[in-house]
Amino acid sequence: MRPDVIVNVAMSADGKISTRERRQVRISGSQDFTRVDRLKAGCDAILIGIGTVLADDPSLTVKSEECRDYRRKRGWNENPIRVVVDSSGRTPNDSSFLNKGRGTRVVVVSKKADPDTISKLEKKAIVLVIGNDEVDLPFLMDTLGEMGIRRIMVEGGGTLIGGLIRAQLVNEIYVFIGNIIIGGKDSPTFADGEGFIQESSFTRLALLDAHQMEGGILLHWKVSEAKTA
Amino acid sequence: MRPDVIVNVAMSADGKISTRERRQVRISGSQDFTRVDRLKAGCDAILIGIGTVLADDPSLTVKSEECRDYRRKRGWNENPIRVVVDSSGRTPNDSSFLNKGRGTRVVVVSKKADPDTISKLEKKAIVLVIGNDEVDLPFLMDTLGEMGIRRIMVEGGGTLIGGLIRAQLVNEIYVFIGNIIIGGKDSPTFADGEGFIQESSFTRLALLDAHQMEGGILLHWKVSEAKTA
Repeated sequence: MRPDVIVNVAMSADGKISTRERRQVRISGSQDFTRVDRLKAGCDAILIGIGTVLADDPSLTVKSEECRDYRRKRGWNENPIRVVVDSSGRTPNDSSFLNKGRGTRVVVVSKKADPDTISKLEKKAIVLVIGNDEVDLPFLMDTLGEMGIRRIMVEGGGTLIGGLIRAQLVNEIYVFIGNIIIGGKDSPTFADGEGFIQESSFTRLALLDAHQMEGGILLHWKVSEAKTA
Repeated sequence: MRPDVIVNVAMSADGKISTRERRQVRISGSQDFTRVDRLKAGCDAILIGIGTVLADDPSLTVKSEECRDYRRKRGWNENPIRVVVDSSGRTPNDSSFLNKGRGTRVVVVSKKADPDTISKLEKKAIVLVIGNDEVDLPFLMDTLGEMGIRRIMVEGGGTLIGGLIRAQLVNEIYVFIGNIIIGGKDSPTFADGEGFIQESSFTRLALLDAHQMEGGILLHWKVSEAKTA
């Protein structure tokens, strides 16, 4: 069974998740930070793309003692399983992803990844080889499901989320919209990649909730037609 | 005195105003259509970029009899003055902009526009020559202010709006966020162009109102630091 996939992102009022130089930007505040930490603590795994690892070097750990406690009391590792989609195996050996905090890491490469690279990554992570040139996302979700992962949170970037949406693998989207304009035709958005051409193929959503906070607004969307296969 | 500039746009949940092929997309419904018609009817002028004229061929006229009546009763022309920012004078002679509905049209070109082109456009519109290569937007706003325009609505596209935001000429932004994902790194957003690089230069907004309608949500932002010069 495929896991439920929950996307969580913050964007500017004009739909950008960072500047055109991919510089990480503070869009939300401490209240939203707490919400995201709790959402993360309730998931079995956290998924990101290699672009985000290279741009932001996130650790993806659970931040608050309260949330780590919540997990430990349930007999879980204090951090969800951390998964990076990284076709050619570019995750740096000294990245926070591979080194900060306890818990299992998974690096998902495709068959184009070099065997030596895979050997190096295997010292710090489980390496899954899925897909020929690109990582095959539906097959990845099947595999994560077989590993017992029921609920997975996706933190970015836009290329990975765009791919998951196109493959109809996303179930819910939380978007915090902050009170800034970043602008720029080349600035990333949360659904990048190719995008849809025909109106009939657009992904349809239902708005579950809208909640004003920290000068912006948090929207909670449900994807109407996610495959549950 | 420069006019108040009100941007009105509709975007997908992932911040796109159309597909990567610039195909016009239905994002909002009839309720939002009525709101936009009323907003338009309350303005002295409507501004768009040449890209939108070429992609969508909009007439920019006031649509409902009710709103046209509202304007006539006040002794105004039934349509606000329609203005296109069109540096090289590419507005087609048979465009709806130049031909549909009563009222004044203004085509704003830069000095790079061909004199013959200008002569042709002058048969159907007032032609303003402002700026060397690109239209100088602050100077345009000064000029529109001198023409007695107090309140101007901008309908797109992303390049024009991005330019107006960068020049700190926008006072308010209405964004309807529809319940679809369009996706695509090359799909236009409402603030395209160069964008900001430094966090300190981001345009800051205040959220005046959020209102759920037609499966999406209408956000009304005020720009905190618009120049009033």
